[in-house]
Amino acid sequence: MAMTVGKAEFSTETHSLLATLAPGKRTRLRRLLYEFGPGNGTLFFLPIDQGVEHGPRDFFANPASKDPQYQFRLAAEAGYSGIACGYGMASKYYPDYAGQVPLVLKLNSRTEVPPSDEAFSPCHGTVEDAVRLGADAVGYTLYVGSPNQAEDFIQLGGVRRDCDRYGMPLVIWAYPRGRDIDKKGGRDSFYAIDYAARVAMELGADIVKLNMPKLNPEKDKESPAPYSEMEFTQEEAIRHCVESAGRALVVLSGGSKVDDDKLLEQTRLIMEAGGSGVIFGRNVWQRDWNDALKIIDQIKKTLLENRTRIP
Amino acid sequence: MAMTVGKAEFSTETHSLLATLAPGKRTRLRRLLYEFGPGNGTLFFLPIDQGVEHGPRDFFANPASKDPQYQFRLAAEAGYSGIACGYGMASKYYPDYAGQVPLVLKLNSRTEVPPSDEAFSPCHGTVEDAVRLGADAVGYTLYVGSPNQAEDFIQLGGVRRDCDRYGMPLVIWAYPRGRDIDKKGGRDSFYAIDYAARVAMELGADIVKLNMPKLNPEKDKESPAPYSEMEFTQEEAIRHCVESAGRALVVLSGGSKVDDDKLLEQTRLIMEAGGSGVIFGRNVWQRDWNDALKIIDQIKKTLLENRTRIP
Amino acid sequence: MAMTVGKAEFSTETHSLLATLAPGKRTRLRRLLYEFGPGNGTLFFLPIDQGVEHGPRDFFANPASKDPQYQFRLAAEAGYSGIACGYGMASKYYPDYAGQVPLVLKLNSRTEVPPSDEAFSPCHGTVEDAVRLGADAVGYTLYVGSPNQAEDFIQLGGVRRDCDRYGMPLVIWAYPRGRDIDKKGGRDSFYAIDYAARVAMELGADIVKLNMPKLNPEKDKESPAPYSEMEFTQEEAIRHCVESAGRALVVLSGGSKVDDDKLLEQTRLIMEAGGSGVIFGRNVWQRDWNDALKIIDQIKKTLLENRTRIP
Amino acid sequence: MAMTVGKAEFSTETHSLLATLAPGKRTRLRRLLYEFGPGNGTLFFLPIDQGVEHGPRDFFANPASKDPQYQFRLAAEAGYSGIACGYGMASKYYPDYAGQVPLVLKLNSRTEVPPSDEAFSPCHGTVEDAVRLGADAVGYTLYVGSPNQAEDFIQLGGVRRDCDRYGMPLVIWAYPRGRDIDKKGGRDSFYAIDYAARVAMELGADIVKLNMPKLNPEKDKESPAPYSEMEFTQEEAIRHCVESAGRALVVLSGGSKVDDDKLLEQTRLIMEAGGSGVIFGRNVWQRDWNDALKIIDQIKKTLLENRTRIP
Amino acid sequence: MAMTVGKAEFSTETHSLLATLAPGKRTRLRRLLYEFGPGNGTLFFLPIDQGVEHGPRDFFANPASKDPQYQFRLAAEAGYSGIACGYGMASKYYPDYAGQVPLVLKLNSRTEVPPSDEAFSPCHGTVEDAVRLGADAVGYTLYVGSPNQAEDFIQLGGVRRDCDRYGMPLVIWAYPRGRDIDKKGGRDSFYAIDYAARVAMELGADIVKLNMPKLNPEKDKESPAPYSEMEFTQEEAIRHCVESAGRALVVLSGGSKVDDDKLLEQTRLIMEAGGSGVIFGRNVWQRDWNDALKIIDQIKKTLLENRTRIP
Repeated sequence: MAMTVGKAEFSTETHSLLATLAPGKRTRLRRLLYEFGPGNGTLFFLPIDQGVEHGPRDFFANPASKDPQYQFRLAAEAGYSGIACGYGMASKYYPDYAGQVPLVLKLNSRTEVPPSDEAFSPCHGTVEDAVRLGADAVGYTLYVGSPNQAEDFIQLGGVRRDCDRYGMPLVIWAYPRGRDIDKKGGRDSFYAIDYAARVAMELGADIVKLNMPKLNPEKDKESPAPYSEMEFTQEEAIRHCVESAGRALVVLSGGSKVDDDKLLEQTRLIMEAGGSGVIFGRNVWQRDWNDALKIIDQIKKTLLENRTRIP
Repeated sequence: MAMTVGKAEFSTETHSLLATLAPGKRTRLRRLLYEFGPGNGTLFFLPIDQGVEHGPRDFFANPASKDPQYQFRLAAEAGYSGIACGYGMASKYYPDYAGQVPLVLKLNSRTEVPPSDEAFSPCHGTVEDAVRLGADAVGYTLYVGSPNQAEDFIQLGGVRRDCDRYGMPLVIWAYPRGRDIDKKGGRDSFYAIDYAARVAMELGADIVKLNMPKLNPEKDKESPAPYSEMEFTQEEAIRHCVESAGRALVVLSGGSKVDDDKLLEQTRLIMEAGGSGVIFGRNVWQRDWNDALKIIDQIKKTLLENRTRIP
Repeated sequence: MAMTVGKAEFSTETHSLLATLAPGKRTRLRRLLYEFGPGNGTLFFLPIDQGVEHGPRDFFANPASKDPQYQFRLAAEAGYSGIACGYGMASKYYPDYAGQVPLVLKLNSRTEVPPSDEAFSPCHGTVEDAVRLGADAVGYTLYVGSPNQAEDFIQLGGVRRDCDRYGMPLVIWAYPRGRDIDKKGGRDSFYAIDYAARVAMELGADIVKLNMPKLNPEKDKESPAPYSEMEFTQEEAIRHCVESAGRALVVLSGGSKVDDDKLLEQTRLIMEAGGSGVIFGRNVWQRDWNDALKIIDQIKKTLLENRTRIP
Repeated sequence: MAMTVGKAEFSTETHSLLATLAPGKRTRLRRLLYEFGPGNGTLFFLPIDQGVEHGPRDFFANPASKDPQYQFRLAAEAGYSGIACGYGMASKYYPDYAGQVPLVLKLNSRTEVPPSDEAFSPCHGTVEDAVRLGADAVGYTLYVGSPNQAEDFIQLGGVRRDCDRYGMPLVIWAYPRGRDIDKKGGRDSFYAIDYAARVAMELGADIVKLNMPKLNPEKDKESPAPYSEMEFTQEEAIRHCVESAGRALVVLSGGSKVDDDKLLEQTRLIMEAGGSGVIFGRNVWQRDWNDALKIIDQIKKTLLENRTRIP
Repeated sequence: MAMTVGKAEFSTETHSLLATLAPGKRTRLRRLLYEFGPGNGTLFFLPIDQGVEHGPRDFFANPASKDPQYQFRLAAEAGYSGIACGYGMASKYYPDYAGQVPLVLKLNSRTEVPPSDEAFSPCHGTVEDAVRLGADAVGYTLYVGSPNQAEDFIQLGGVRRDCDRYGMPLVIWAYPRGRDIDKKGGRDSFYAIDYAARVAMELGADIVKLNMPKLNPEKDKESPAPYSEMEFTQEEAIRHCVESAGRALVVLSGGSKVDDDKLLEQTRLIMEAGGSGVIFGRNVWQRDWNDALKIIDQIKKTLLENRTRIP
């Protein structure tokens, strides 16, 4: 793949994106990219942290999903690149699936009860926990642009250094959030997502998890120039975000459940834009077992067919 | 027991709930579940932390109860699974009862003097204190949904890691609290208790202490969907909460004194819902010695007769 | 002595209050209780921390008292159980009196300049300082019920653990304080003092320093039940407070200067209630040398004559 | 060069400015001053931290600049004294250019999303990171005069001590910022820049990065005397700022893109005032490759021709 | 000297004030008191921290003073007891004067840009820095009575313990400050200065730096009794402040420039009151070289002639 931003002479991919990573990170990332999941350099993650982030209300759509074994078994049997969850579930459920699916230990989380004006996601897990559990990556939610960004950057800095110490890949959930971003086009704006992608890379992410930017000509006028002045297609917007993340791999986040066509369309878009995969939670496990297997199959196929960048 | 949520094929109990725990935790939990108290996999705790949480006013109902020896002797002689208290009492009174009843060292506490809008319970004890005192578990109060949840999660994360380091079971008092939960149905709502149960498990609880959810069709409309839209019986609500805690054991908290029938009824409910026991303080030690012994007997019998899950 | 609260069968004193303490604590406490001061299990402390807490204004009543040597010499020559002061004075003046009177190193303090709505007394001394200086106890001011109680409990927890590490007795100045206690009857109310006594014990005090509760039927209605509903005599109130402190020894704090009869009356009251002694500063050193010696004599006599509990 | 402030007898340069530095700092600074870039004791830095500080919006002017390889290749091939960036980019892109251009690892950063009323730039990188990456200096943004200056000074103190420990030169981005400086003439006033230069030196900077002071007779009246009362030329103002930094070297910061004549004029001014060089980002890399090379050539020539102080 | 407060039998000076200090502190203090400066037990310090505390505006009165070499050379050649400055200047300028004049390393500082309602001076230097630089004392600014006093006391506690660890004398700049002191007579009131002197001593100062108390019968009514009720002469006020500092030595601070007669008069006053010397900055280095030498000579003479206490 040749990225279209910049002159040909500055092709971004003169060598593997993993070439500048330490051996521990490369070893673990190769497991995610090639040995598990759809493989061939793609990523397909199952997140099960909604119990903390939203509460059990997300499980009512599919009562079986309340039992963490549902997601663990799904991740292992349907062939995911990894399952992402916090320490409590990793310690009590992952032992039964150890080695069957890679673990991405999510280190920080918050409940949705307090407002997110000053969002901050505190760490209760550590990179050392991840090493002990046999995880192949850690996850960190960064609330880009929050009034609490100082605390967030400092906390992330500690996690990043521990990742370097142990050769542990760092996945950043890069979420624009807080009262100030709301005044500049909002958390889903192209400006906000593009900014978040870049910040995650510049702070040391190996993989960046992004939401799909939502173009909204009216609200985008509140964003800084040139976002407020230029017109972009959805394709251009997502490509820009992927490029902002530079050598960090990008996976697209799903959010609440949408129809299948839209889900697969988004999967195609992120891959064509140079992304490396998707991380879909509710869109998968809010289905019953057989339906879940079916959509998983389609997602994996879409990932493999639309891959444009080999990490 | 087979839990009714989810498909049969995802039975939650393919093996002991303790199977994925480290040996230190299993050793100590077995002491609580089988060697002391009613036994047979049940839990019956006596908490004596009200002196800090409410002040000595709770002792006027039974003046003898002001002397901590009352509760320690009761716990030891009437056969509890454990007595839960803070460091001051554990260090000055537990030596006289060491080995006669297991100790659950409560690590954090607060007075009720300041309002609980931004509730946070600071740690003044440590897991190492618990090890030194010969405790079989530590207790931690988590104020789920409080504006101070970041500080709380970080503090709990440290306790949880120390529990892993020493093989010490972690009991979480999972209490919804703070001004934001008050706007979403309140601290006793099904939504709040269900959320708290899940958060405690996802942050690493081995045992979760819950209050009984109170169904209140009017106030529940302020909770998020589906809590605001569906109708639940008391039985369903408590079962949901227990299931949200997954492989963490659940004990029901008593609160202020109620009549005996209600007390035993609640005990039955929690056990039928898959819970593992109860933790009753004022309902027991606000009685004189002989009355206390009588109700203890009835509670233990109810626990054993209604047990539906073997940990 | 047999305390009157509780059934006879739960006598609080089946053995020495010191029996459950570690050897370092016992060694040092025996020095305070038996080897210095009035002895025979009583405590008589001279505090000289008013220079920080109130400023030098307290010294104008007796200009000689401005020179710390006044208090040190008084404590040594008149035979106190200990002198309580902060690091600056301990390091510069105690060397001249080392071994002549025990030192209680006060670890935290604050000036009275900022309002006490959110009172918090920061530590600038450490238990290790106390060990190095040859102190026999440390002092800590706990502002029970302050909005800053979280910071206070955490700080005290660290001090308490260091006390355990070094076998150093912990004296807690248990002072209700802050805007919230002011709404519930005030800092001197029976409710507040009783609560403070209990909290100090439950957080690990070996000795609790209390102010005399002031009964005020009008204001006490703002306290929680049963304080707002029952009537108590001064004798009952102080006895309740002493009992709330359980196995922690209680000493009565003096406050600003009162007349001699009242001073001795209060001394008698605390001893009859099961207290172990008094800590009088201004009431003693705001007198000239000979007057001070005279009242000291009377206080010591009162302590010995009214002792009801042998620690 | 003889500086004109002060008596001749107090010439500031009786010996090399580097003479009082530790060997590690001298070794690394000589690399920046003599072995790379224009050399001969001058400094020419390329900063690429705008992706965090402003977001990707800065890259639209020259899409090629979005790929960090653009700046790294420019710095290496056009011959800069150093490239300044954060950990994420340094770890993923610098390996390809290691040894071809010195690295200045920027340790702290913030997004522009929250307002800068209480500006603070949190550290997520460390001096140890810089050592490991083979960097020749670290960069730190100090928001002089911010209400958060206490946190800033403390954080900087830690960085400064680590610099001493490892012999790592410390470059301080000395930026007046926050609501209080806005009331005293503003962040670009002579008063503010002069103050910032001095503070950076007094807190331990080896190199101080300054913005050009902007003289504004109307607004300067809000500054303290004598800034509010005297008249200064641009030349005098910048000379004062350089002198305030004492033995710390001064480099001029560029800011948003200006026309070429102004850019070179500013370069000349800082060098004549005793400065050591410039740090221009957008003014260089917002041009296409050949234009960038052309202006770089002119800047380097200007630096060498107008140098007045040999460090 | 015999101090007049207190009975003759409690003479404050039964032995050297240094007798209770550790050997490292005594060694270094003797250097300041006897080997450098006017000697004979007096102290004469030159502070050069105004560049941070006030900004470079203080240097316009004597442009030569902007170059730190001016103050260092003055301190060394005119014979000061010590020069007090922060780390940046100490590390870059002191090497040229090492051994020629003792160094007092100032550990904390703040800019005057933010208001001082909640004044706090953060540490960016450490006692270890001072040891490494060969300093003979450290300086710490304590804002007595500030709403941030908790943070201040804790920070000072750490510095004080490090001073004990390394035998390093501790000089406290004891400055009443903050919105609450402004309501009680203000930062320069006798009440405030007297309080500050005492607090500094009780927190462990070896030397206390005080401003001259300003008697203002109108404003003093806002101070607590007896300050609001009694009348004092300037002589009495300063003597009280010196006595409040007990065995800590007291030096008088100069503040902004005053006429020579007043300067010498203040020097005389502090010495007669039992003080040990002065610390004059702007009053000395805002003069040209020869004028500075002249006034220095007069100050030294005044110090020696009016000395009343031998430390």
